[in-house]
Amino acid sequence: MTRDLPMTVPSPGLPDHVTIYEVGARDGLQNEAAVVPVEVKAEFLHRLAAAGLPVLEATSFVHPKWVPQLADAADLLNRLVRAEGVDYPVLVPNERGLDRALEAGVSHVAIFGSATETFAKRNLNRTLDEQFAMFAPVVQRALSAGLRVRGYVSMCFGDPWEGAVAPEQVASVARRLVEMGCHQLSLGDTIGTGTPGHVDAVLDACVAAGVPVRQLAVHFHDTYGQALANTLTALRRGVRTVDASAGGLGGCPYAESATGNLATEDLVWMLDGLGIGHGVDLDALVGTSVWMAEQLGRPSPSRVVRALTGGA
Amino acid sequence: MTRDLPMTVPSPGLPDHVTIYEVGARDGLQNEAAVVPVEVKAEFLHRLAAAGLPVLEATSFVHPKWVPQLADAADLLNRLVRAEGVDYPVLVPNERGLDRALEAGVSHVAIFGSATETFAKRNLNRTLDEQFAMFAPVVQRALSAGLRVRGYVSMCFGDPWEGAVAPEQVASVARRLVEMGCHQLSLGDTIGTGTPGHVDAVLDACVAAGVPVRQLAVHFHDTYGQALANTLTALRRGVRTVDASAGGLGGCPYAESATGNLATEDLVWMLDGLGIGHGVDLDALVGTSVWMAEQLGRPSPSRVVRALTGGA
Repeated sequence: MTRDLPMTVPSPGLPDHVTIYEVGARDGLQNEAAVVPVEVKAEFLHRLAAAGLPVLEATSFVHPKWVPQLADAADLLNRLVRAEGVDYPVLVPNERGLDRALEAGVSHVAIFGSATETFAKRNLNRTLDEQFAMFAPVVQRALSAGLRVRGYVSMCFGDPWEGAVAPEQVASVARRLVEMGCHQLSLGDTIGTGTPGHVDAVLDACVAAGVPVRQLAVHFHDTYGQALANTLTALRRGVRTVDASAGGLGGCPYAESATGNLATEDLVWMLDGLGIGHGVDLDALVGTSVWMAEQLGRPSPSRVVRALTGGA
Repeated sequence: MTRDLPMTVPSPGLPDHVTIYEVGARDGLQNEAAVVPVEVKAEFLHRLAAAGLPVLEATSFVHPKWVPQLADAADLLNRLVRAEGVDYPVLVPNERGLDRALEAGVSHVAIFGSATETFAKRNLNRTLDEQFAMFAPVVQRALSAGLRVRGYVSMCFGDPWEGAVAPEQVASVARRLVEMGCHQLSLGDTIGTGTPGHVDAVLDACVAAGVPVRQLAVHFHDTYGQALANTLTALRRGVRTVDASAGGLGGCPYAESATGNLATEDLVWMLDGLGIGHGVDLDALVGTSVWMAEQLGRPSPSRVVRALTGGA
């Protein structure tokens, strides 16, 4: 008996191809209690590239005091054997982070903003206006150096302190980041409360504010089990880049009850069933997630990983 | 800080109301290793009714040799204090099961068929034609006694032995069960491999074969994480009854690697976000699932239950 496979049945209105933006090595490992050795991180990235993932967010140049898990960012990039055609963006929280990223020779950076005043205050100790003032020189200098800049917008679908977040508020933040020069925005459901109608509302608000849908990516957390239904909704609305985390690694430690990102394997299963190209070898990816779960000493939360490996 | 809530944003093309057909007490407990005491089962059903669930599949009159977990079916129905307006169907595998259900005074029964020859052989030790021959007198006698009869069709989206299952094959089985007199068919993704385009294809095939969509229900397993995206797809296609299991209890022990049903809580979260009525009090339901998880001595696999109770 071979393993289960989805039957491939395309659905009208969906794209031929989706770009999976893999965040496991950064967003995933950043939120694990264990500090993973740098050689294991390098091996993780090598395996993810070999499994066919086209974009691997490799690490973050955040200050080690805040995220000790990624204190080895420069060392990791130095060890990394870059695969042909694979993009390796890194997160930079501020100008100091950008300096370190430029020293490491990266070609693609990401900044991490908030859609809400409260989370900007909690995560960055800044107001929203101060957040933009902090990001402006980062983006400007990165663009001048020939880098591409992705903008994360977190708390787009709710905030644990503010509760509901108006789609127009998200759109306003998104527009400012695009005007600043971000080539792509990743709209994050950091606490995982969003549902499909809400996804359409946020995407519609962004487009109405002048942000083209081709510049939007989605970043769903599966805290309330909604990530894949929301992803399907975003694909129907024209989004072509989806963030996911191998094996479902990660989450957001600042958001109470937030659990992992959408598992890349669960996304790949749906895309395979829909006949949407992505370039990933699912078995190689599952093997990588099982290996990483062993390094972390805990099982993967991905449903696909658990099903294909006997619930281990 | 109050608990997280989805923001309610309706989506065009979705219904105002969905009927949740709760299968936890039957499909869920049937597939648990532990045999739950009859008084715990009665309490479970009382709590589910109090939480607002409108349909509770209570038990099965299958032979105790095959499903010892539900050997107490008659005793359970005898203890059950039926809530006003709540429907309590029971599964009957054959005429002997129907006899026992009639003795217990039920008004709604369900039969459990297969979409594939191989699963009919494995589960019922019959060919598909023999399956229909066995069900015909069950349905006829139930209808004569004034009962309603639901028909389950299992393995609609794949079979662990046959692999892919043609949507036309599913539609043919569905049509025969409707012609026999079933008022509703529950199309089951028993191994959980289905994806959204496949859901549309199966529903389209059934409608093309003459089965009205208003008579169709869907029963998704979350083995590969696809259950909620598939449910959303079925709702867009006109389905108005969705099977789910409180806390994600259950699965199918005959299907290798099959894990639990769609968790009722995860479904309720999506319906709340979409502004679709269902009548269920989510907090009361979560409390019930946590209580049942304690009885079973293992955590609930529902994402919503875990998020709202701190990952317990």
